Amino acid sequence: MKLDPSWVSGFVDGEGTFYVGINKNETMKIGFQVLPEFRVVQHQRDIKVLYALKEFFGVGVVRINHDTRYELRIRSLEHLNTKVIPHFNKFPLMTQKKFDFIKFTEIIDLMNQNKHLEVDGIKEIILIATKMNRQEKFKTLDNVKNLDLDQEQDRVHT
Amino acid sequence: MKLDPSWVSGFVDGEGTFYVGINKNETMKIGFQVLPEFRVVQHQRDIKVLYALKEFFGVGVVRINHDTRYELRIRSLEHLNTKVIPHFNKFPLMTQKKFDFIKFTEIIDLMNQNKHLEVDGIKEIILIATKMNRQEKFKTLDNVKNLDLDQEQDRVHT
Repeated sequence: MKLDPSWVSGFVDGEGTFYVGINKNETMKIGFQVLPEFRVVQHQRDIKVLYALKEFFGVGVVRINHDTRYELRIRSLEHLNTKVIPHFNKFPLMTQKKFDFIKFTEIIDLMNQNKHLEVDGIKEIILIATKMNRQEKFKTLDNVKNLDLDQEQDRVHT
Repeated sequence: MKLDPSWVSGFVDGEGTFYVGINKNETMKIGFQVLPEFRVVQHQRDIKVLYALKEFFGVGVVRINHDTRYELRIRSLEHLNTKVIPHFNKFPLMTQKKFDFIKFTEIIDLMNQNKHLEVDGIKEIILIATKMNRQEKFKTLDNVKNLDLDQEQDRVHT
């Protein structure tokens, strides 16, 4: 199944998610890990479309999401930089999801500069991430409740 | 907002519905009314995309669906024949929704021949319709429970 690039953008406008997880990770110097992820979830009846999207982008993993749902997931910073972001810059999203994509791109740009390994940078990333995918906002805020976003004196030098 | 035709098919693969309602209607000779409908439902934040789709097809009505959701709806047999069906024949759907589209087209073809005004024709239409959009199947079957689909002796001559 060969996909037209504009079809891919239309389908992702409906079915795709640009998500940035901020998770506590004590093994990281900064205490938090930034996990950007592009994913498309489908019922198993359309798993072929997920494999076609994987072939289209040339990267990613098709795996179970939950129950009878599967996902194509792309997490690698390199693949997001070289495959995902260039595609949606060339074949733009038309729904409000484009604003999630813009914020996603801003975070990837900060990660490209290794800002996610510094306290100021991770604060900036968190502030952008909390404005994305409103339904998951509170999960992200809950994960970072120990990192005071306003108190500069809490800054940790890495 | 100008939409690319392949974007439209991708978006509809995710967000569109091809639906055929079979409703009791005592004012119709046959007792049932066949209501084919193409629709796309979006949260009000993306109402602009619905208007862009309306402009793209050149037909349809944008109206409230429920709560904060709006829909573009195309019901006219002429518009389905001249705008909707030709588009998806030229720019094909890629998900299993294409099988709904094929059945939708079969029903429209039968309606073009006025088969929905005859008992045999409406039985054929109902049998096709019950294989579409599985989640709405039982609603359709419930609406036609007085029309015995297997007992030929029940045939009503119109």
